Amino acid sequence: MGTVSTRSPFAPDTLPRLEPIAGVRFATAEAGIRYLGRTDLMVAVLDEGTTVAGVLTQSKTASAPVLACRKHLKKGEARLLIVNSGNANAFTGKKGREAVDLTVEAGAEAIDCHRHEVFVASTGVIGEPLDATRFAHLVGGLAEAAVPDAFEAAARAIMTTDTYPKLATRTAMIGDVEVTINGFCKGAGMIAPDMATMLCFIFTDAHIAAKPLQALLSEHVETTFNAMTVDGDTSTSDTCLLFATGDASARGQEPITKVGSKKLAGFSEALHDLMRDLAIQVAKDGEGLSKFVTFVVEGAESEPAARRIALSCANSPILKTAIAGEDPNWGRVVMAVGKSGEAADRDKLSIWFGEHCVARDGERAAEYDEPTVAYYMKGREIVIRIDVGVGSASAHVWTCDLTHDYVSINADYRS
Amino acid sequence: MGTVSTRSPFAPDTLPRLEPIAGVRFATAEAGIRYLGRTDLMVAVLDEGTTVAGVLTQSKTASAPVLACRKHLKKGEARLLIVNSGNANAFTGKKGREAVDLTVEAGAEAIDCHRHEVFVASTGVIGEPLDATRFAHLVGGLAEAAVPDAFEAAARAIMTTDTYPKLATRTAMIGDVEVTINGFCKGAGMIAPDMATMLCFIFTDAHIAAKPLQALLSEHVETTFNAMTVDGDTSTSDTCLLFATGDASARGQEPITKVGSKKLAGFSEALHDLMRDLAIQVAKDGEGLSKFVTFVVEGAESEPAARRIALSCANSPILKTAIAGEDPNWGRVVMAVGKSGEAADRDKLSIWFGEHCVARDGERAAEYDEPTVAYYMKGREIVIRIDVGVGSASAHVWTCDLTHDYVSINADYRS
Repeated sequence: MGTVSTRSPFAPDTLPRLEPIAGVRFATAEAGIRYLGRTDLMVAVLDEGTTVAGVLTQSKTASAPVLACRKHLKKGEARLLIVNSGNANAFTGKKGREAVDLTVEAGAEAIDCHRHEVFVASTGVIGEPLDATRFAHLVGGLAEAAVPDAFEAAARAIMTTDTYPKLATRTAMIGDVEVTINGFCKGAGMIAPDMATMLCFIFTDAHIAAKPLQALLSEHVETTFNAMTVDGDTSTSDTCLLFATGDASARGQEPITKVGSKKLAGFSEALHDLMRDLAIQVAKDGEGLSKFVTFVVEGAESEPAARRIALSCANSPILKTAIAGEDPNWGRVVMAVGKSGEAADRDKLSIWFGEHCVARDGERAAEYDEPTVAYYMKGREIVIRIDVGVGSASAHVWTCDLTHDYVSINADYRS
Repeated sequence: MGTVSTRSPFAPDTLPRLEPIAGVRFATAEAGIRYLGRTDLMVAVLDEGTTVAGVLTQSKTASAPVLACRKHLKKGEARLLIVNSGNANAFTGKKGREAVDLTVEAGAEAIDCHRHEVFVASTGVIGEPLDATRFAHLVGGLAEAAVPDAFEAAARAIMTTDTYPKLATRTAMIGDVEVTINGFCKGAGMIAPDMATMLCFIFTDAHIAAKPLQALLSEHVETTFNAMTVDGDTSTSDTCLLFATGDASARGQEPITKVGSKKLAGFSEALHDLMRDLAIQVAKDGEGLSKFVTFVVEGAESEPAARRIALSCANSPILKTAIAGEDPNWGRVVMAVGKSGEAADRDKLSIWFGEHCVARDGERAAEYDEPTVAYYMKGREIVIRIDVGVGSASAHVWTCDLTHDYVSINADYRS
């Protein structure tokens, strides 16, 4: 293990309290998969009729659990979620698929459901075979023991290099009925493939069919989790699943079956807000970070172009180290904009650090005052805004700085 | 300035000796553009009839000198090269263009040539106005004082954060006549946009028209400078120019005017070898490096796909920090292959660290022995070979590791 284990400066003093959601129960266990003395297995049992939507890593070397989720999502039905930490079951070949099969089979038997209703996720070391026989036998007992009021325990069981559990809760009205959305995630980046897969699980008691649920999740992931990066290193295992138990229909919520239903406006907004909250929590636990950084790109040709420019900045090692050094180095911002490959008007480019304009219309701003901006850079939260001067589209990306601690954590991790 | 100024462990004990090339003369000066007590201005005077080829940065925020070179290259004729270090004249708006105009004008007057025959390059801080009046008046005197035997002095004048000058020389036969190719470059990466633009200038006495010269340069840049990265951060100013004075025709070399001429086979090979040599010298002077790393990707769908996979590895912060930590972390190689977006067969992927196979056919190799591979990782030069199992194309990329010193250099640089 690395020698750096400092808690993120953004770790919250108190965690949000997540009230139970009708139709969802959790149990956790110490299965000893890699860690000792902490939980590393989490099971969520879902009521019959639960629908599910998911977004999975685009990696060409996706893990065995990701491949299983992709297959099972086609039916849009869910009854059980089984997650382990300590081993990602990625790049494990035939053995990896067998481990998933064994886990899914154990789950389906435990609660007497179809195999496609069982979802699995694994996070931890890549390339080590995952011995599912060490925990598959536990699934039945856990499913039986599961309780509704255990979101925090569930969030803790899936942590790896995270320095705090990441939880969020929102409510929304669908018609006259209030529904709840609870979510938790882990990840100290997208990002650190050994032990910091991004996993996110969201639960709601709303009654929404799988297709509109998927449409909402896919839409919001673009401006939340896909707008967040620690080091640009996409994991083999990134998984975001959204489960809707439908229990709110017992309280009179009219089931939503159509994509784009106007009745989902409030729910959509609350879901976006919750996903945004969780994505920021992940960026704020980025490995070794000292600062939380937001890049806002305006005046771009299109929203995807704006996001690519913002990501080019957020993934630039030389710009991120300058921020770590509290250096208002806008020359490096110019470089990162230029290398994105997206249209930018060199003679109209303007850059702000916080409220301070440092460059306007392609050259240093007349009012630029280095000591003022250097003082701004000493803050914990840095906003860098860039107008590229070619259009009207904008996008943001959240990230953190690149510090000595990042190098220490990742140079010493496995050995 | 940063607190780290350690010489690269790969800095050579002795520099290669570059013999004069007929038709090329150099002069340097201490113009005090940014540095004191060192040369920062270099002028190369070229005989009448010199042809030129060039490859310039793809950055959308390219510097004013790059834009001028792009324009002047259209005619393919050159008489003068003026390069300054200390200021990149990038993101300097109208003032930047005026500084280039002033420099080009001074050059054209000094040796009585056309403006399009004058080439300029600048490297150094981005966004600070370059005051060309501080050195334009020196150009005439320098052009007059220029001497043929001064390649090393020229190479030193264009250095910024480089810890050693980078020089290479080759000879080749065109028909029965031996021609010489001399080149030098600077850059501690592509890479560090503040002070480490990649500039490369190559000179030959061969008589080759601009079109075939450009064809050769464009071809070879793909497998040399474009196959090298320190941190993936493309500069606003990257410039590679190749000048052919044609003086070898006085010794009987038949002028080459056609693209693809078979008579250029030997010259092409020597040019490629020289560019490869210089590219490796740049990677070996990467900021803060402790190791020189070569990624070799085989079994890819196409050569560009192979190169993108290799670049994905070479630009992954988490993989580069693992290498700095001497950790044979092939899980991170799998991640970097996966995130490249290129085709790879998860179940056929194989990985070697040096001669040691660590993963075969999608899982850990049976013979993998951690202590053996960990010992290999302690070496200065690391080769990581990856077979992605989908085709027969291959490519390589040279890079270096990501160390604490990289963070120190770039966090403390400007302040």
